[in-house]
Amino acid sequence: MGGVSSVSATETIRVSEIFGPTIQGEGVLIGQPTVFVRTGGCDYRCSWCDSLHAVESRFRDSWIAMSLDDIWGQIEALSGGRPLTLSLSGGNPAIQPLGSLIERAHQHGYRAALETQGSIARDWFSDLDVLVLSPKPPSSGMEFNGDALLDCVRSAGGGPETVLKFVIFDEADYQFATQVAQLLPKLPVFLQPGNHTPPPPEESDAAIDMSGILDRMHWLVERVMQDRWFEAKILPQLHVLLWGNLRGV
Amino acid sequence: MGGVSSVSATETIRVSEIFGPTIQGEGVLIGQPTVFVRTGGCDYRCSWCDSLHAVESRFRDSWIAMSLDDIWGQIEALSGGRPLTLSLSGGNPAIQPLGSLIERAHQHGYRAALETQGSIARDWFSDLDVLVLSPKPPSSGMEFNGDALLDCVRSAGGGPETVLKFVIFDEADYQFATQVAQLLPKLPVFLQPGNHTPPPPEESDAAIDMSGILDRMHWLVERVMQDRWFEAKILPQLHVLLWGNLRGV
Repeated sequence: MGGVSSVSATETIRVSEIFGPTIQGEGVLIGQPTVFVRTGGCDYRCSWCDSLHAVESRFRDSWIAMSLDDIWGQIEALSGGRPLTLSLSGGNPAIQPLGSLIERAHQHGYRAALETQGSIARDWFSDLDVLVLSPKPPSSGMEFNGDALLDCVRSAGGGPETVLKFVIFDEADYQFATQVAQLLPKLPVFLQPGNHTPPPPEESDAAIDMSGILDRMHWLVERVMQDRWFEAKILPQLHVLLWGNLRGV
Repeated sequence: MGGVSSVSATETIRVSEIFGPTIQGEGVLIGQPTVFVRTGGCDYRCSWCDSLHAVESRFRDSWIAMSLDDIWGQIEALSGGRPLTLSLSGGNPAIQPLGSLIERAHQHGYRAALETQGSIARDWFSDLDVLVLSPKPPSSGMEFNGDALLDCVRSAGGGPETVLKFVIFDEADYQFATQVAQLLPKLPVFLQPGNHTPPPPEESDAAIDMSGILDRMHWLVERVMQDRWFEAKILPQLHVLLWGNLRGV
């Protein structure tokens, strides 16, 4: 059970938002009903971050230090006590002590999926059902740490279904994805066109550039077919196509 | 190997079109690179059929009786000889003798997925890698044959990954989906909002009602969440969102 036993009952988790149930819009769980638990705080500052309200310190006042019981109460209320898959995201959820939440979820028949950039490995990764590692490509402005990513894979071990997801804006990002995928040839790969008009951190109905997003998806499909990289899956952010940048859906 | 051995080398397969590689736009293989083999002919006439050019007899002249070698030659040319998943569709591909094509695919490291309404069972279903059974709901105007569907599941046996996919236009369709899913509780379920502006059988750039399609998707997500049917996955036709009614993508 990894770090679970070291989490004291009084330890809190810093939460940005809990919402759902709705469908997961991305990656390996696309289309699957889920409740999102978005934690606050991140060790990265990606140029095109679409969750700045859960990342930047100036929104820290909106993050709530919640007890496990309070979080679980909200999850049960939203899901009507009916088991589903939780989506643990952020920010970087690996910063928070989530082992006890994963354990609680399993006790009640729920599943737990977590998405992280793979910069911080936690021993409780092995307790997850799904681990999505999403290393940030050059367009993010962040530096890639291959050792940390490999640590995450090792921490997960044979526990969860572990997959790679890459946000792709341009050719350099695409090349990055091919190189990291070669480092970890056993992991399924999901490629996702980037949204260059991410939601502003303050809630608003700011328009997205849908045609630009679709253009990038078309390019990405062509690029992958040109390389005949048939092992990769290419999926857009479904929630963006369906709801634009609206939050909480 | 089921019926494969009974298919003579000279038997032909009636093909409407072979195209790709592109991504699969629907269901369990969504986002996955694939080459489509669409056979000609169907035992159904669904009111909202989006592939009439492969269904109606008046397009029969455009269907080509092809040998296995000719079909395989086209698949290898399109995929550059690099293995991927074939998507066998129609019309109703179960009408055609596809056992030998599936066998050939496996000999070369390819995988074979087939989608059918589940009205005709074939012994070579057990050789597939993926079998998508898509029983037609009331809005199609077709009558549901539960015995035939169960025959299809039995023919597949433990061979392929077998899943249910339902096109949903309205509440009656939704209720139909819940009832059929209860008949086959072990099969994963995919729900897909219908396109009430399907492509006309003659190629054209006829506009689709994107906002209507999105409205139906929104309704379907809400409907499923209201019932807390968390085992179902809800996915739109991605190719319609990305390319409208354009054919061959």
